[in-house]
Amino acid sequence: MPTIFEKIIAKEIPAHIVYEDDLTIAFLDVSQATKGHTLIVPKSPYPNLYEMPEALAGHVMGVAIKVANAIKRAFEPEGLNLLSNTGTIAGQSVFHFHIHLIPRYEKNDIGLSFTEHQDELSLEDYEERAERIRAALS
Amino acid sequence: MPTIFEKIIAKEIPAHIVYEDDLTIAFLDVSQATKGHTLIVPKSPYPNLYEMPEALAGHVMGVAIKVANAIKRAFEPEGLNLLSNTGTIAGQSVFHFHIHLIPRYEKNDIGLSFTEHQDELSLEDYEERAERIRAALS
Repeated sequence: MPTIFEKIIAKEIPAHIVYEDDLTIAFLDVSQATKGHTLIVPKSPYPNLYEMPEALAGHVMGVAIKVANAIKRAFEPEGLNLLSNTGTIAGQSVFHFHIHLIPRYEKNDIGLSFTEHQDELSLEDYEERAERIRAALS
Repeated sequence: MPTIFEKIIAKEIPAHIVYEDDLTIAFLDVSQATKGHTLIVPKSPYPNLYEMPEALAGHVMGVAIKVANAIKRAFEPEGLNLLSNTGTIAGQSVFHFHIHLIPRYEKNDIGLSFTEHQDELSLEDYEERAERIRAALS
């Protein structure tokens, strides 16, 4: 079943499109977490980051930089978060890869914290974690 | 003044490196928001997303996909957030562009919410926002 993004790409439903090329479309997130919150979406419906071809992801990232700079010029935010969520637990609700650009104006205009849950880790714990990732890369 | 990342890249201070190539290095975030939390860092010290050359950002994104899949194989998380923060207000603490990969195991293992602050917007409000971004892109 096509997701809402495929319907937007096919122009079957409207969206506030800010950028489009052969491979990519960018439009306002209807939820507008903050003013100018924009999604960068490849036209091919890969479900998430894991499945994205590297070259296409690189192109999408280039578009994200262009649009981030346009948001900066348009709204002069204090900062900006680039975010891509994989899996329901991580906040993904449309299973078609996309990047959020969320301009930031105030400290708590979105909720984002990941310093509260630090583990107490030994050097060996770090090294074991790194080695598991290295092994999975090879 | 060089940031801590430049010192890691120069091997002047240690880090738990999981991947390295000519342009990029990836290592465990010392804060380990969750198990396997990894940073993908270009070796050139661009301060943030706005300043990143598109081709280099594309390469970094390709490395992020490789490492994300390795984290998936290594730790079998339920999901994963890819995140890049620009500006102190957005959570950036090292002013050298980097991408966080944060595997997710439980619903609230990191704090991330951006649905609570939705505005009440008219169609005209959306269209005005989109037009400002389009104008800034051209």
